[in-house]
Amino acid sequence: MNYAADHALGLVVAAGDRVLRLRAAADAGLLDDIDGLPPDAPRADTLNPILAAGRSVWTGLHSRVHALLARRDHDDLLVDARDLELRLPFDVADYVDFYSSIHHATNLGRLLRPGTEPLLSNWRHLPVSYHGRAGTIVVSGTPVRRPRGLVATGGGGPQYRATERLDIELEVGVVVGGRSDLGQPVSIDRVGEHIFGLVLLNDWSARDIQAYEYQPLGPHLGKSFATSISAWVTPIDELRSFLRPGPHQDPPPSAHLRTEHPWAVDLDLRVLLESRSMREQGIAPAQVSSTNFADLYWTIAQQLTHMTANGASLRPGDLYGSGTVSGAERGSEGSFIELSWGGETPLDLPDGSVRTFLEDGDRVILEGSAGDVRLGPVEGEILPAAT
Amino acid sequence: MNYAADHALGLVVAAGDRVLRLRAAADAGLLDDIDGLPPDAPRADTLNPILAAGRSVWTGLHSRVHALLARRDHDDLLVDARDLELRLPFDVADYVDFYSSIHHATNLGRLLRPGTEPLLSNWRHLPVSYHGRAGTIVVSGTPVRRPRGLVATGGGGPQYRATERLDIELEVGVVVGGRSDLGQPVSIDRVGEHIFGLVLLNDWSARDIQAYEYQPLGPHLGKSFATSISAWVTPIDELRSFLRPGPHQDPPPSAHLRTEHPWAVDLDLRVLLESRSMREQGIAPAQVSSTNFADLYWTIAQQLTHMTANGASLRPGDLYGSGTVSGAERGSEGSFIELSWGGETPLDLPDGSVRTFLEDGDRVILEGSAGDVRLGPVEGEILPAAT
Repeated sequence: MNYAADHALGLVVAAGDRVLRLRAAADAGLLDDIDGLPPDAPRADTLNPILAAGRSVWTGLHSRVHALLARRDHDDLLVDARDLELRLPFDVADYVDFYSSIHHATNLGRLLRPGTEPLLSNWRHLPVSYHGRAGTIVVSGTPVRRPRGLVATGGGGPQYRATERLDIELEVGVVVGGRSDLGQPVSIDRVGEHIFGLVLLNDWSARDIQAYEYQPLGPHLGKSFATSISAWVTPIDELRSFLRPGPHQDPPPSAHLRTEHPWAVDLDLRVLLESRSMREQGIAPAQVSSTNFADLYWTIAQQLTHMTANGASLRPGDLYGSGTVSGAERGSEGSFIELSWGGETPLDLPDGSVRTFLEDGDRVILEGSAGDVRLGPVEGEILPAAT
Repeated sequence: MNYAADHALGLVVAAGDRVLRLRAAADAGLLDDIDGLPPDAPRADTLNPILAAGRSVWTGLHSRVHALLARRDHDDLLVDARDLELRLPFDVADYVDFYSSIHHATNLGRLLRPGTEPLLSNWRHLPVSYHGRAGTIVVSGTPVRRPRGLVATGGGGPQYRATERLDIELEVGVVVGGRSDLGQPVSIDRVGEHIFGLVLLNDWSARDIQAYEYQPLGPHLGKSFATSISAWVTPIDELRSFLRPGPHQDPPPSAHLRTEHPWAVDLDLRVLLESRSMREQGIAPAQVSSTNFADLYWTIAQQLTHMTANGASLRPGDLYGSGTVSGAERGSEGSFIELSWGGETPLDLPDGSVRTFLEDGDRVILEGSAGDVRLGPVEGEILPAAT
């Protein structure tokens, strides 16, 4: 059961191929007696008022929606999923991106700082993270224009040109609800009050722009041109039976980052690529990577607690990304810079072409599933750079 | 003439000690014929609808407000500035922080990487910058709680404790209006369409938290606990006669960052500090630094164009900070880590105490002025860490 927002219909909930209109359900009085649910929240354009309402409301709403979807006498509330035109499911408040896959961080360390210890000394002590641009988060299906930027050249200064190393990052995004007070950290035992659900997230990255700009204050324009998320938000309640203990952490993290609660999510993730010529020839998108989310080194609970450990407050609509999810084996990496090992080992596509980084016309699709629960896909096609 | 937002009265405009209520002026029909001004915009709780309306509306509105303030027959529209309870003047969309003072960047390079070239090789080629947390931007007067965080210790892992190196950063913030399209850079000749005005900005920084976390993705929790801005926004139109050509740039920047238009702002800036004991003894805040904004290496125009050079879009309410403004001489630095040279040369306060970094009870005030134009101050007092 996933939530989304349609341009015309407002909020909708899907389970399988049945899609329930929340506005219509509210108008029919079917959501009246959910404790704490503001009457306007299910009638809103986005999930934000529901996100603001908090944990007990979410649980009540999910369970009511399940009951409505199970009944057969509400056809007037249902629409065909194919008729939807989905917008961003929520207005993003702040967007933070983590860097919490040990395989990804190790791969990047090897690629960018060869001959040195790939993991920096702080990496196992805190979930490294930074803020990204909330205003350029776009919904699945939005085309992504190849960005220009300042990139290093052989000698002299940098050149302002279209990126030649356009990449993806396969991530899971956590949708935050409720508020916390400025100055008051959210303890790890209370993160469940703020984790509404998950989306898939593609943190498009221009590696050459990023490489030139990122010292000493981190990535900015190599990332800020677009970040795509699923149109569908999967409530964490749907994934309870897929929560596992997180991976063993050595050294043990600081006490405020420890919990007995299982917060790793056993979620299968896949990256598919379709070139323009594959599309023209009717060749189905090719899977280029598959991995699992459960061995992310820092769990989504540790990430949320860390993010507020200095007293930073949360707002409904905050979003944080897991960081690129890469597995330990070849073929399980969540980015092309890893899959092609810095461009040295191109991938073969079914149309006979090869890929190191993305080309114009390429369409990338991220998929995720846990048992029967499917996360909304994220897809986007690369448009040529603006002239 | 500065704009602010009062909790009860809505938008107000001050010139000297006269404060005009925009909502009352609109109700009296005095703002009806300003081309393009949506009727609800002057009645809103914040500046955002005015920011959305765009450059020509701003110019029309400023000039009407000047005319109203000059007349003597509108006493019913005026309130005493002392009765105001000001909130954030606008809801912040995205917040980007630059690092554009060459003196500051050089000082920090010397302090943090002694024995190496203090400016990294990209610094003179692009305005280095990163995203900060919009949700913890607070209005002048809001107390700031000393943050906790993971800090390096002598040996072994880091310790989670209250910062011992709490600092300020003296900055000027640019308030952005209008929208730009995703995928379309804003050329440097059109930045004037998006620069609504300026605030002063204190980018509170916990240097020990920042030092431990910032590699390789930049600052996060060392900054995200609070950023203070003026309650008053000064329109750039008020500062037209204080615009100067920017400093000479060698090497010359990329063509897209060049302009003949003068975009450096001749603005005097001051930092004042009042300890708790000074306050108790009735000793006035002591000036600890003074500098000028005009020699910022990268101008606010170059910053805006750079920020969108990859196609990132702008939204009304975006805010960007100049980065710490430091001058070339001792006593003109915009942070305590520079003023006390990494804690080695404490400052003497008039109550007989000394300062390297901030202590609980300290109140910091940032002031700015250009001729008769005064920018709203930014002040904040340090509260002890949460227990």
